Amino acid sequence: MPAMTPHDIHRMIDGLSAEALGELKGRDFLLTWDKSREELETVLQCALVLKALRTSNISARVYDSGLAVSLFRDNSTRTRFSFASACNLLGLTVSDLDEGKSQVAHGETVRETANMVSFMAEAVGIRDDMYIGKGHTYMMRVAKALEQGHKDGVLEQRPTVVNLQCDIDHPTQTMADLLHLVSETGGVEKLKGKKVAMTWAYSPSYGKPLSVPQGVIGLFTRFGMDVRLAYPEGYSLMPDVVDTAGKFAREARGGFRVCGSMQEAFDGADFVYPKSWAPFSVMEERTVLVESGDRHKLQELEKRCLETNARFQDWQCTKELLAQTNNALYMHCLPADISGVSCVRGEVTAEVFDRFRTPLYRQASWKPYIIAAMIFVSRMANARATLSTILDRAESRVL
Amino acid sequence: MPAMTPHDIHRMIDGLSAEALGELKGRDFLLTWDKSREELETVLQCALVLKALRTSNISARVYDSGLAVSLFRDNSTRTRFSFASACNLLGLTVSDLDEGKSQVAHGETVRETANMVSFMAEAVGIRDDMYIGKGHTYMMRVAKALEQGHKDGVLEQRPTVVNLQCDIDHPTQTMADLLHLVSETGGVEKLKGKKVAMTWAYSPSYGKPLSVPQGVIGLFTRFGMDVRLAYPEGYSLMPDVVDTAGKFAREARGGFRVCGSMQEAFDGADFVYPKSWAPFSVMEERTVLVESGDRHKLQELEKRCLETNARFQDWQCTKELLAQTNNALYMHCLPADISGVSCVRGEVTAEVFDRFRTPLYRQASWKPYIIAAMIFVSRMANARATLSTILDRAESRVL
Amino acid sequence: MPAMTPHDIHRMIDGLSAEALGELKGRDFLLTWDKSREELETVLQCALVLKALRTSNISARVYDSGLAVSLFRDNSTRTRFSFASACNLLGLTVSDLDEGKSQVAHGETVRETANMVSFMAEAVGIRDDMYIGKGHTYMMRVAKALEQGHKDGVLEQRPTVVNLQCDIDHPTQTMADLLHLVSETGGVEKLKGKKVAMTWAYSPSYGKPLSVPQGVIGLFTRFGMDVRLAYPEGYSLMPDVVDTAGKFAREARGGFRVCGSMQEAFDGADFVYPKSWAPFSVMEERTVLVESGDRHKLQELEKRCLETNARFQDWQCTKELLAQTNNALYMHCLPADISGVSCVRGEVTAEVFDRFRTPLYRQASWKPYIIAAMIFVSRMANARATLSTILDRAESRVL
Repeated sequence: MPAMTPHDIHRMIDGLSAEALGELKGRDFLLTWDKSREELETVLQCALVLKALRTSNISARVYDSGLAVSLFRDNSTRTRFSFASACNLLGLTVSDLDEGKSQVAHGETVRETANMVSFMAEAVGIRDDMYIGKGHTYMMRVAKALEQGHKDGVLEQRPTVVNLQCDIDHPTQTMADLLHLVSETGGVEKLKGKKVAMTWAYSPSYGKPLSVPQGVIGLFTRFGMDVRLAYPEGYSLMPDVVDTAGKFAREARGGFRVCGSMQEAFDGADFVYPKSWAPFSVMEERTVLVESGDRHKLQELEKRCLETNARFQDWQCTKELLAQTNNALYMHCLPADISGVSCVRGEVTAEVFDRFRTPLYRQASWKPYIIAAMIFVSRMANARATLSTILDRAESRVL
Repeated sequence: MPAMTPHDIHRMIDGLSAEALGELKGRDFLLTWDKSREELETVLQCALVLKALRTSNISARVYDSGLAVSLFRDNSTRTRFSFASACNLLGLTVSDLDEGKSQVAHGETVRETANMVSFMAEAVGIRDDMYIGKGHTYMMRVAKALEQGHKDGVLEQRPTVVNLQCDIDHPTQTMADLLHLVSETGGVEKLKGKKVAMTWAYSPSYGKPLSVPQGVIGLFTRFGMDVRLAYPEGYSLMPDVVDTAGKFAREARGGFRVCGSMQEAFDGADFVYPKSWAPFSVMEERTVLVESGDRHKLQELEKRCLETNARFQDWQCTKELLAQTNNALYMHCLPADISGVSCVRGEVTAEVFDRFRTPLYRQASWKPYIIAAMIFVSRMANARATLSTILDRAESRVL
Repeated sequence: MPAMTPHDIHRMIDGLSAEALGELKGRDFLLTWDKSREELETVLQCALVLKALRTSNISARVYDSGLAVSLFRDNSTRTRFSFASACNLLGLTVSDLDEGKSQVAHGETVRETANMVSFMAEAVGIRDDMYIGKGHTYMMRVAKALEQGHKDGVLEQRPTVVNLQCDIDHPTQTMADLLHLVSETGGVEKLKGKKVAMTWAYSPSYGKPLSVPQGVIGLFTRFGMDVRLAYPEGYSLMPDVVDTAGKFAREARGGFRVCGSMQEAFDGADFVYPKSWAPFSVMEERTVLVESGDRHKLQELEKRCLETNARFQDWQCTKELLAQTNNALYMHCLPADISGVSCVRGEVTAEVFDRFRTPLYRQASWKPYIIAAMIFVSRMANARATLSTILDRAESRVL
């Protein structure tokens, strides 16, 4: 991003929709389809402003004190650091709710824990993506508990819940992906009509969440893109999300189509996003088995899935497949399963991955700004005025 | 708490006793009975000022840099987050001394570790509550090491040790409890003569620390309250602490009585605090067994205790018991063992817990402010002047 | 350190070499022998300035936001807290890359991880000291990845890598040790000709890194000291480092000699640094066995080494040995194996350790300032001007 003058940044700030900011204020960010298209664009734009400020060495610190709570129920590198970076940019200190070190196991309810960690919290980021029907439900319960706690005078402020990946959606990822496309193409309006292939790809592992492909089809369709979803037989996504994607495509006069092969999806595509996931039905079965604690059946399920998986080893992103596209940009949420690098055979060849390494890393680099923007638009009483104040006071981030 | 004008807050600050502040300066907070009543009231008042400032969006950040060290030798949710919140409010960054990740196990002495982590530390918060004769002793050793390190020119400042729960007392909990009562009744002087029932209650678990009941009887008696301690035969507390509570009650012209039943303690009570704990003698036996590493005898002890425990399942806080009180406020340090919720049968019925959920959460909400006040009064060279400066500079906590 | 006037501190700042600062800018701190003597002195001097500022209650916070990443592949107390303190002093928030909680295990490359955690990072501190040929190599790879990431526009800034102990060197330790000597003797020029005994000492454990003795001989020789390295037969260090130390001694017209006994090394010494380490050849063998996963052979190696070790129990720092020195200052990186305290028989007698406890703790107290200085000189565009600005704005560290 080229350096911008304060005047440029002021114009970006003026472009933020007051109406959308009004809607975003005080709201959680759990699923992109809970938000209007204008609200989503406002978050993207706010992220761009925050980046422009930082690039200009202007500190966007709006909190002199305040906590952000993180709760990771699954491993994470980039989301953990993105959340830490975003909170730090705004002046919040992250306190990690490590359930192993807490008394959560000792019969504490979600409602109670949510209140107990939030007396001085402005944001709560949660990753809970492993079991169908669990993650989003948990986040809703946390949000409700915080809402009630604030209403009851227990919490002086109502922290914003940010979904750092649930069983259904992964909005901090897909919004960063979208901002990457905006940045690469030159504007959100340029995305209209662009062809995207969101496809399954082979991985030697089993049980990867559905949240990325679901998040992508549920978000990219809203911007008039022509989205093709491809997967081998049996690897379907949640029907609701697929329906929603179809509806969004019709509303935005874009396209949404399910294809039976990578070839079909890649044909003439502008962007390709090949990524492994587990079939919805398997994830459901797995959730039930985990709940019942049936280790034997879980191992059987895993064995069966890996066998099924192995039948689709040709679902790999190769340079030959890319040659059929419209000089497509390769995307991935990382880490990718790279053939010959992180596994014998995986989602993508090393050759393709290497060619796109720099844009892939840039894609990831938007996440801290997206998370900061999600928190910012929810927490600030008047986000536009505050951004102007930040710009005008021009406090140095680095002395 | 209603919004206050700067004038109101100035009056609160003026009300702080200069003499008590002088005594608190540079001192640790390990046991409430080490402090004079005036000192305790000064800490409560300082906590109220810090809350009034935050509610008025005035930042109480007094440190531009500085560390706070936390050491948790037992699980914790609310105390961990309260300590994090308190330190953050004052501008300190918490660094957790995770003994598993440190070289503490490799023959490092308490004296050495205490100095090594404190070169830039202003406060050290410790939870060490599991073994009789250990926690408080450990904190005293840390305090002595820091005192010596500062005297020897090793430490540029002498960090304040804050007891986040030891084997004897739990001052951040009981001071927060007390502030809750002050807030509910309208003033510390209103507490005089109020009847409090601190009673044992049944829990299906074994080995809960004595620090809360001991802390409560050792603190509430100082404010002229009529404190009744009730427990089943065999569940007595440390004799020293019980003696101290009696002495405090006489001095403050309040009351202190040991009762043999919840009924007796609840009769006409204004506040009830039913909570499980392990008998002192059991805790002592357990400490010896843990030291000797005798797992078999430990299991036997646990089995025996659980059997004894099970005989007192009727020690449960019910609405019938509450009906005998003077419309009492139910208190708990949380998490409670709630019958039918976190266990089959526990300390309190779900009905009672639900009725008092909001005041219970508010009770917990004072802890960050109490901890911040404990650190503040110990660290500031002139706490009253500094609070006035904070108020007058009126830096926004949130832009 | 006596309190200094702003005038004194200004003179210290003026003494910083502009040329050396120019060389240090943007560079990592991996090995002291990568730096010129003038650069090393500049880091020492910058550390002294940062200490003088803090002692004068002047905040050296140069970052209003920014992350520091820490990665500890081995246990650590003092380095962990020193890094936390240093970063906090400058305004950076430490985010720990806990590889267990990350996706590093899932086939992520060093290059990718390095970029993914660094979008808003200014410094990356790494401890990786367990295996020969690994730690330094890993740090170089991280540094290269960050360099490339910045060049490719992935990272807005190029974080500085700080070696918090590798297989070869331990510069934050030895630079702190050196600053301790400067502080004790009154100036870096006073070190010329001083006799230092860096000797092996007995420990009941096995496998301690070589980085401290190697770091010491590779650093102290540069300042014209007369360095004697002593160890039992078979406990030699990496030949390259020993050669480098010899070369430095010749260049600085100091001395460097390998002795066969503590007695010889201690004779007339001004400073003694007796410390256990594993033989280079054993560390090499161990690295191969760890890689091959051969637990049986590893146990055999350990057994054999402990047997060899046991033959040298008389390599212990006693008061009798100290009596042969020129009233030497005893040094150690801590924790020491103290006979009768942390082990039956170890590196030093309790009597000697106790006599030097305070200077030992002071020795350790320099590490936070050394780390802060390493980051500062690398990150600041104009370190001298920035220090002057910090001094002139005179923002209070504690209100």
